[in-house]
Amino acid sequence: MEGTLLYGQSGGVTSVINATAFGVLDEALKSKAFDRILVMKNGISGFMEGKFFDMTDADPRKLEILRELPGAFFGSCRKNLKIDEEFEELFKVFEKYNVRYFLYNGGNDSMTMAMKVHEKAREFGYEITVVGLPKTVDNDLVETDHCPGYGSSAKYLYVSVIEGTLDVKSMSKDSTKVFVIETMGRHSGWLAASTVLARKYTTAPHVILVPEAPLNEEKFLEKVEGVLSKEGFCTVVVSEGIKNEEGNLISKMELKDSFGNVQLGGAGLKISKMISENLKVRVHTAVPDYLQRSGRHVVSLQDLIEAEAVGRKGVQLLLEGVKGVMVTIKRESNEPYVWNLGFVELSKVGGRTRELPKEYILDMDISESFIKYVEPLTVGNFLPFYTERKYNLSIFEK
Amino acid sequence: MEGTLLYGQSGGVTSVINATAFGVLDEALKSKAFDRILVMKNGISGFMEGKFFDMTDADPRKLEILRELPGAFFGSCRKNLKIDEEFEELFKVFEKYNVRYFLYNGGNDSMTMAMKVHEKAREFGYEITVVGLPKTVDNDLVETDHCPGYGSSAKYLYVSVIEGTLDVKSMSKDSTKVFVIETMGRHSGWLAASTVLARKYTTAPHVILVPEAPLNEEKFLEKVEGVLSKEGFCTVVVSEGIKNEEGNLISKMELKDSFGNVQLGGAGLKISKMISENLKVRVHTAVPDYLQRSGRHVVSLQDLIEAEAVGRKGVQLLLEGVKGVMVTIKRESNEPYVWNLGFVELSKVGGRTRELPKEYILDMDISESFIKYVEPLTVGNFLPFYTERKYNLSIFEK
Repeated sequence: MEGTLLYGQSGGVTSVINATAFGVLDEALKSKAFDRILVMKNGISGFMEGKFFDMTDADPRKLEILRELPGAFFGSCRKNLKIDEEFEELFKVFEKYNVRYFLYNGGNDSMTMAMKVHEKAREFGYEITVVGLPKTVDNDLVETDHCPGYGSSAKYLYVSVIEGTLDVKSMSKDSTKVFVIETMGRHSGWLAASTVLARKYTTAPHVILVPEAPLNEEKFLEKVEGVLSKEGFCTVVVSEGIKNEEGNLISKMELKDSFGNVQLGGAGLKISKMISENLKVRVHTAVPDYLQRSGRHVVSLQDLIEAEAVGRKGVQLLLEGVKGVMVTIKRESNEPYVWNLGFVELSKVGGRTRELPKEYILDMDISESFIKYVEPLTVGNFLPFYTERKYNLSIFEK
Repeated sequence: MEGTLLYGQSGGVTSVINATAFGVLDEALKSKAFDRILVMKNGISGFMEGKFFDMTDADPRKLEILRELPGAFFGSCRKNLKIDEEFEELFKVFEKYNVRYFLYNGGNDSMTMAMKVHEKAREFGYEITVVGLPKTVDNDLVETDHCPGYGSSAKYLYVSVIEGTLDVKSMSKDSTKVFVIETMGRHSGWLAASTVLARKYTTAPHVILVPEAPLNEEKFLEKVEGVLSKEGFCTVVVSEGIKNEEGNLISKMELKDSFGNVQLGGAGLKISKMISENLKVRVHTAVPDYLQRSGRHVVSLQDLIEAEAVGRKGVQLLLEGVKGVMVTIKRESNEPYVWNLGFVELSKVGGRTRELPKEYILDMDISESFIKYVEPLTVGNFLPFYTERKYNLSIFEK
């Protein structure tokens, strides 16, 4: 096929976004269908400054290490094109490298971006096939059963809740009695909800606070007090984006990113302070922050496999000439877990946020029926080289 | 041998303290040397209220799961006996169960406690053999090369620094540029220092702040700025116990535990604020808190093996009639790493804190020669059931 395939990543990273990159590159290289294969450095932001990796002659075997790397090896960005002039500029750079196939890998904002590239290209008469590849630990893209990256963060978090709970339980007789852990999740409680998996092994988490359910401080403190008098210790999971009944964020910073999202932080500490001041007990607070979305050492193998498959599917769709769509993951059955890939028009995805379905949200808790949804996404292990130390990263140093 | 063997745990937990318990119990059960084998529930605190587990007839095979459990399965405490009346009360309870062999497993404060039990027993004429078993993620016990628990927390932290660094590196072009991670370590920088292991795979950490070296804010900000202009991103590791040049803690809470230790928290956030306000860059802050000392899923197998061996050695010393000592770990060589166990008088250990040796401390950094010390302690993996889900914890539910 004539023209260049261009792949890029955007938005927050996941433990498995590099596996999607591997899927794209391996599939594209083996197809021998593209004149050139380029990867944006730092997504659209770097590419518009002429920064990219030329992978046309790469050796797929040497790329396999991408499966083991957290973060975005090729760099990500938070750039968002808005006005026509910016798109004209983008298409000029596209034309310079004869880019005719474009795979953009990201979450909500990135899919909106991909949709706009698709639409603006038609408007401006630039011939290009655009396909979006889903990726977000927030799991809040619509039209897909789940998003690559979510399963691994879910695993990081439920494992952390088990471990933090067994710690506070050990100490609770005459020391700390409450363990609070703050999870990511600005608009949706998917990540916080995933910790319900810890119930397979412990009684925790005892309280799960999600953005979809406003916090009533009084009822919350009552619930913690009840757990303390029954169990002697309590584990509370808090989404960063929880709000009070007036709709105000429990804690927010003033900084905004280029998508206009308010940068959150501090909900966990706020909740901890609420508990220690009112109930007069000692509280420990964990804020894993980036660690929950980069915790490749506790990856879900299932997630990794799906992330790679999503990359391959993107290339296949390009080859089939399917335009303006995002790859989706479909769940065929739960037991056994059977999945396959499909696609949906980008216009149905961009700008929408999938909240946690109401059926899973209980009173400051998550229904155990959610375990059926999330558990298959967290299965299997694949340790990276830096915990086993078989490889040396220098073979792949930028 | 006549009399009861009593084992108990005290102080903060580790990822491998249950492996020491397994070593004690397996060795004691197989020796068939003791009339009874009891384990304190929540250390001395629970035992003085008559709470314990009778393990005399336990099946060692069923106890093997202890190797996989984080936290202190038998419960820990922060109780510290001070006055003679308390010791008299303790010996009354000891006498009730005919306790003649006592293994106490903990860190600095617990070894002081074991020493006092040993000394007060002599003073009061109560016949008992006391042996201390080391355990602390802080690695600050004197007279031992290192402490069980340290290697696993070191592994958790260096892995987290790799992952958080690859995350911030991905985002640094037009989003967050600095990643700050706060480690435990009230008095010593052993945990923060261990993250130098991440240098095997990345350029991070770029700054390591330890309690042994006072912080000069101006020089610190200069250093971060220098890293940013060179690399475009920066990872800072901060011990919770860092102090400024006037000797004041960068951040402290007013709460004190029963040993009189000030409860710290917030050094990481304080440092992050310092950076964002002065250098006008976006900063992300991770505070793993309990997760770094309970992160059994990323255990060091070497640490686990040594923790179990320390438990066995304690029983062997009791059988040999050695009194008033703590088990120590000796390093015979680095390459290959060869270790064995010894012992030292409790009076040489109690009440002392081993600081990080000055030779390792550079200007807001740790010498790479420290890698030789810490690396052998972090080697090998052994995944727990809750990441592999082969077992069901209910077989061992309290």
